[in-house]
Amino acid sequence: MENRIIQENTLRFFTENVFLKMGCSQTHAKLAADVLIQADLRGIDSHGVARLVGYVRLLEAGRINPQPNIRIIHETPSTAVVDGDKGLGLVVAPIAMEWALEKAEQVGTGWIAIKNSNHFGIAAYHAMKALERNMMGWAMTNASALVAPTFSKQRMLGTNPIAFVAPAGEEEDFVLDMATTTAANGKLEIASRQGQLIPEGWAITKEGTSSLSPNILKEDGMLLPLGSDIIHGSHKRYGLGSMVDILSGVLSGAAFSRWVPPFPAYVPMPANAPGEGLGHFLGAMRVDAFQKAETFKSQMDIWIRSMKEAIPIDEHQKVLIHGEQERVFEALRKKQGIPIHSSVWGQLQELDQKFTLNILQDA
Amino acid sequence: MENRIIQENTLRFFTENVFLKMGCSQTHAKLAADVLIQADLRGIDSHGVARLVGYVRLLEAGRINPQPNIRIIHETPSTAVVDGDKGLGLVVAPIAMEWALEKAEQVGTGWIAIKNSNHFGIAAYHAMKALERNMMGWAMTNASALVAPTFSKQRMLGTNPIAFVAPAGEEEDFVLDMATTTAANGKLEIASRQGQLIPEGWAITKEGTSSLSPNILKEDGMLLPLGSDIIHGSHKRYGLGSMVDILSGVLSGAAFSRWVPPFPAYVPMPANAPGEGLGHFLGAMRVDAFQKAETFKSQMDIWIRSMKEAIPIDEHQKVLIHGEQERVFEALRKKQGIPIHSSVWGQLQELDQKFTLNILQDA
Repeated sequence: MENRIIQENTLRFFTENVFLKMGCSQTHAKLAADVLIQADLRGIDSHGVARLVGYVRLLEAGRINPQPNIRIIHETPSTAVVDGDKGLGLVVAPIAMEWALEKAEQVGTGWIAIKNSNHFGIAAYHAMKALERNMMGWAMTNASALVAPTFSKQRMLGTNPIAFVAPAGEEEDFVLDMATTTAANGKLEIASRQGQLIPEGWAITKEGTSSLSPNILKEDGMLLPLGSDIIHGSHKRYGLGSMVDILSGVLSGAAFSRWVPPFPAYVPMPANAPGEGLGHFLGAMRVDAFQKAETFKSQMDIWIRSMKEAIPIDEHQKVLIHGEQERVFEALRKKQGIPIHSSVWGQLQELDQKFTLNILQDA
Repeated sequence: MENRIIQENTLRFFTENVFLKMGCSQTHAKLAADVLIQADLRGIDSHGVARLVGYVRLLEAGRINPQPNIRIIHETPSTAVVDGDKGLGLVVAPIAMEWALEKAEQVGTGWIAIKNSNHFGIAAYHAMKALERNMMGWAMTNASALVAPTFSKQRMLGTNPIAFVAPAGEEEDFVLDMATTTAANGKLEIASRQGQLIPEGWAITKEGTSSLSPNILKEDGMLLPLGSDIIHGSHKRYGLGSMVDILSGVLSGAAFSRWVPPFPAYVPMPANAPGEGLGHFLGAMRVDAFQKAETFKSQMDIWIRSMKEAIPIDEHQKVLIHGEQERVFEALRKKQGIPIHSSVWGQLQELDQKFTLNILQDA
């Protein structure tokens, strides 16, 4: 079946209305929809409206509170812990990021650990809020366990992404958003859909042996940390995923390690969790807390140009700067619309009927 | 030739005296020696006294100022930029870390970008200073270019390590210190010494093709980012190394990218550098700026135990926590002495004579 092309505005209007029907306020629905639409615009199809039905199911399972009382429960001038009150991560994280930015305005930097939240979409969305204010931004989140630490065959860590962004001057801003596994979950889904094997080094079976099956996660298999095996540095990355879990989970009072709540609503919640909900960690650093913003941004231009001009192995493939590909997608999709995979389109239509929205009928 | 075993105290006394002869103050010599001796104690032989002669040569080449005026040139309550005045990174970084800790005492967190410095030894040393004060610590540094970004065959980034530490309660503290390449430089040196080939995925030739030679860096080859190739996530890690370079170099006003000063004094300084010297980035976060320190530490214990108890692939090899192996080394070497490779021993004896110290004669 073919992809369906749908315009940004229609998709945004539809998504907002689904969140409204879920019981979210006008403001929260707008926020949550914006996070998902940005993912689709930027080409991160796995984290956009493809997840909308998943959020609806979490709500129906009572795992999401559509009207959360999101609040700071402890703070210092440069830090805070936020209780997300079981809200959508798509709402909790943007509100908390706003507080991080305010703290950075006051004392140079702001750092927020968040507990009792849910999946927050693409990490880059939250970090990028810093760019508008001449700040560098960070966003991390823990996620339900899919990754085996080095030497183990048990799922203990999530794909635990890290986003880091820095503003440039004439060049485009630097926007890094990386899962800390060798391959993100979504890449296995794509391989599965296309009936292809996955490369060695992406995943292992539940016995801890190498697997090339794109469906291995459904058979209790596990993703491998960035670096794949110990010879190629997986012990380091397992450390990096650990850092994200400690900052997002342990530091905030959220669940962590094998207790992080799963995204699919049909997967039972891990028993005896040592904390509440998913955890995130957000940061903002005012560039001019270190040096003049103009100087920093023109130095960033030099940094970016030096990378772009690095001698390529193949002259037709130049070095890419992080964020570059996503901006190409965004420009294209804003103009031409967003392609929706047929299986996702089916889900969206079901939501359209379920909530009697009738927005997608003629789209 | 055999390794020489030397007691910590003798090695420390000798190292302090070499730094004194280099013109360092008593305080600075003690600090610098401590950083190197800690590396040797913790089993990071590549970053301990094996580098001492390298620092002496940098001094003789006029690239290190033994009496630097290390100072804050810009600050906010939670941030500062420090000018290292061409001092030893072994001295500049510990002093700057002290300022980061003080800022964290005041406003919850402290973040210091440092320019005009030199190599600072093991990153973990600096981050670990946070542990004594119930804080989490960060340390990063850029380093001279040895790594090709994905799609390129030019050296553009250093091994750019990240250290992150967090205090535990009854368990040992979490201490991550990772180069952001698949293999650290020192691993190639060990393979070279032992006459062994290196695994696929560690390095490439100057033409950008795979190399198994442990001497490939001497033939203008390059290290590969963690992840090795694009299928295994190297594009992510090239992003991680970039983040370290942006925070350590661009943000501080130091040199960055291909302009970072080399450690070997015989390698010419890159021309037209866009900043001054090496750059570091240090951070401290008070645990109780987020939650009660006791609560955090007992939650860390749960996190650590959950990892240690993860089902192993081979029951004889349990999951290791970051910092665990280094602590085993430290306990052993404090008792039994530090093994010094014969080639390093020869260098140290030359320094002993050069500076007429006569400390190693009977050691």
